[in-house]
Amino acid sequence: MSLIVQKFGGSSVADKERVFNVAKRIIETYKKGNSVVVVVSAQGDTTDDLIEKAAEISKNPSKREMDMLLSTGEQISISLLAMAIHELGYPAISLTGWQVGLTTDTSYSNARISKISADRIKKELEHKNIVVVAGFQGINKYEDITTLGRGGSDTSAVALAAALGADLCEIYTDVDGVYTADPRIVKNAKKMDVISFDEMLELASMGANVLHNRSVEMAKKYNVNLCVRSSLNNNEGTVVKEVNNMEKMLVKGVAHDLDVARISLCDIEDKPGVAFKVFSLLAKNGINVDIILQSIGRENKKDISFTVSKSNMQKAVELLCANKEVIGFEDLKAADSFAKVSIVGAGMVNNPGVASSMFEALCEAGINIHMISTSEIKVSVLISEKNAEKAVNAICDKFNLAE
Amino acid sequence: MSLIVQKFGGSSVADKERVFNVAKRIIETYKKGNSVVVVVSAQGDTTDDLIEKAAEISKNPSKREMDMLLSTGEQISISLLAMAIHELGYPAISLTGWQVGLTTDTSYSNARISKISADRIKKELEHKNIVVVAGFQGINKYEDITTLGRGGSDTSAVALAAALGADLCEIYTDVDGVYTADPRIVKNAKKMDVISFDEMLELASMGANVLHNRSVEMAKKYNVNLCVRSSLNNNEGTVVKEVNNMEKMLVKGVAHDLDVARISLCDIEDKPGVAFKVFSLLAKNGINVDIILQSIGRENKKDISFTVSKSNMQKAVELLCANKEVIGFEDLKAADSFAKVSIVGAGMVNNPGVASSMFEALCEAGINIHMISTSEIKVSVLISEKNAEKAVNAICDKFNLAE
Repeated sequence: MSLIVQKFGGSSVADKERVFNVAKRIIETYKKGNSVVVVVSAQGDTTDDLIEKAAEISKNPSKREMDMLLSTGEQISISLLAMAIHELGYPAISLTGWQVGLTTDTSYSNARISKISADRIKKELEHKNIVVVAGFQGINKYEDITTLGRGGSDTSAVALAAALGADLCEIYTDVDGVYTADPRIVKNAKKMDVISFDEMLELASMGANVLHNRSVEMAKKYNVNLCVRSSLNNNEGTVVKEVNNMEKMLVKGVAHDLDVARISLCDIEDKPGVAFKVFSLLAKNGINVDIILQSIGRENKKDISFTVSKSNMQKAVELLCANKEVIGFEDLKAADSFAKVSIVGAGMVNNPGVASSMFEALCEAGINIHMISTSEIKVSVLISEKNAEKAVNAICDKFNLAE
Repeated sequence: MSLIVQKFGGSSVADKERVFNVAKRIIETYKKGNSVVVVVSAQGDTTDDLIEKAAEISKNPSKREMDMLLSTGEQISISLLAMAIHELGYPAISLTGWQVGLTTDTSYSNARISKISADRIKKELEHKNIVVVAGFQGINKYEDITTLGRGGSDTSAVALAAALGADLCEIYTDVDGVYTADPRIVKNAKKMDVISFDEMLELASMGANVLHNRSVEMAKKYNVNLCVRSSLNNNEGTVVKEVNNMEKMLVKGVAHDLDVARISLCDIEDKPGVAFKVFSLLAKNGINVDIILQSIGRENKKDISFTVSKSNMQKAVELLCANKEVIGFEDLKAADSFAKVSIVGAGMVNNPGVASSMFEALCEAGINIHMISTSEIKVSVLISEKNAEKAVNAICDKFNLAE
């Protein structure tokens, strides 16, 4: 008998039939004698509909009021899911973020979890209830409702699993698990049985889209056993856990990200503080920067290039141009026709040949590389967006990542 | 400078335009230097849509989960209304039932308010916020969400006005106030400027549909000044308050109720306990009984007749027939083609001629009376449903209730 946390996304509970499917799956786990805590997101398009309602009222609504509004989406799904479990003859109780004592900081719309007082959940589990918890939401010290931002329900599930000391946290999604590459692009990509937290982190941040990074970071921090699996079948899924001996498998997977724009500042005077000026300006304005490269220009000048998401490119360019003299650059180039392709694997750090094999694969496919960035367990390259699919397949072939 | 509670129903906030209209009206009151607490219901059809969602899942959903579900309706409207007030440049904050400490008993779907800890509201008022509170909902001792049942938002508003010691509680609706008769039936019915709590209670329970009885009872108990007025214009409305000297005006208004079925149990043995058996059986099964009449039958037998709402007739008949031998009646008659028409006025008790004038009006209109019931301040008659409109007009003419 174990304590299992199961998380279902919005598409898994989008309509009556799916709600009952999810309810049946939960009951299967419960019938085996397990204690079950379920975390669920808002149904299908509910969140988008609520955002639209707010947009009708205000272009720039208060974040506190947005959280008050959006948190209703999950509250609707937990009550309906509890009803469905009842209808199938099993005991269940729904609980909101504040009812389970999921306390966050005070930053609305993107709050961080600070504490979970799991007393209420424990009491309900003792009463043999299946506990259905609203994901994505919490409460701050003012007793105001907060939401956790993107990937919030995954994070809620992992945080609850950590607070309850759960034996397993299952994240149900619409794919069978984590693949060596995007199965939509590499037709014979392989599903991994096991992946380490660090590898999953690199894959998640590079567009694998299966698990949000925050939830993986939290799982790593509290050593929560994660399992990513499909809500549509009974396949085993991929286990994400602490793995120590990963040297045999050099390259674990390939990720690609099409939402990449590159900005280059050319001929900046080569003196201290320039990078600080550039990136603090962008950070203050909420623009996330991904790859950063600094290179020598000519005559004591240097170039700084970096990537941002496509939606942020225009704003970043405007900010930088408005501060051209303070930063002191001559020329600015920006383009948004790039893709980032990365290979990830814990064994990479001790094997310098891995990066060159990747470059070889791209060369053989006739693909030009615009930027390179490496870390201990990944190598990323920036290439033309139109070459992304070809690149991912070439790399899979090179590293035997496809079946 | 006063503290004013304003309550707006679901139709008043049904769409973007109406939300802004309500916001403007609230701001008018706020700009005069008043502290304003607003109570608002779920938008338009939201509650019906949520009920439908639940009905898809279960024919008999858990009441606790229904309250969890339905309370999201008001949470959506408070956040949107607060955003609209912000958009117009004024400070506002939305609060749910549990955030304002509106504590109820544990009976889900029809909870009674037990306590309001208004600390949060007072703090927000000190910060010069317009406080927008979700009507219809509260929290019980288990920290579970409850709803207050029919007329719940009116009750929330009056309860908050009482707890805050408000100077006035304004109930905004789609009519100008309380009329001497239903303006849809009596074209020249008069709007009353003032009406006593007791008169309002009798009118409300008899289908006047302007204010729910529970809210009037609570206003009477805590002596809250109520005002019923239109959200569509700036007319004065009707003030409901404690009035002592009401003898001059004998008949204040006419109410009618078309949702009436009559059941008669004939030839019951005339011994103690029969009425108890009948009405405790109905009460245990949640069937409200309105008028009750007991009459002598023949040979130590008696008849008991009473009215229930049309939707309860079938169930009541089945219950009674199933217990025919225990109760000991010979025959049962049931029909649902009745209307109840009532005259209300505090002066009535000292003037027996009032009832006979009512009967005279009906007689002159050729309308047969099937049952009569009287109290200190009202006289009700049961007539054929098809005669209801004619009866109300005849009574208005007799008592000069129309202009």
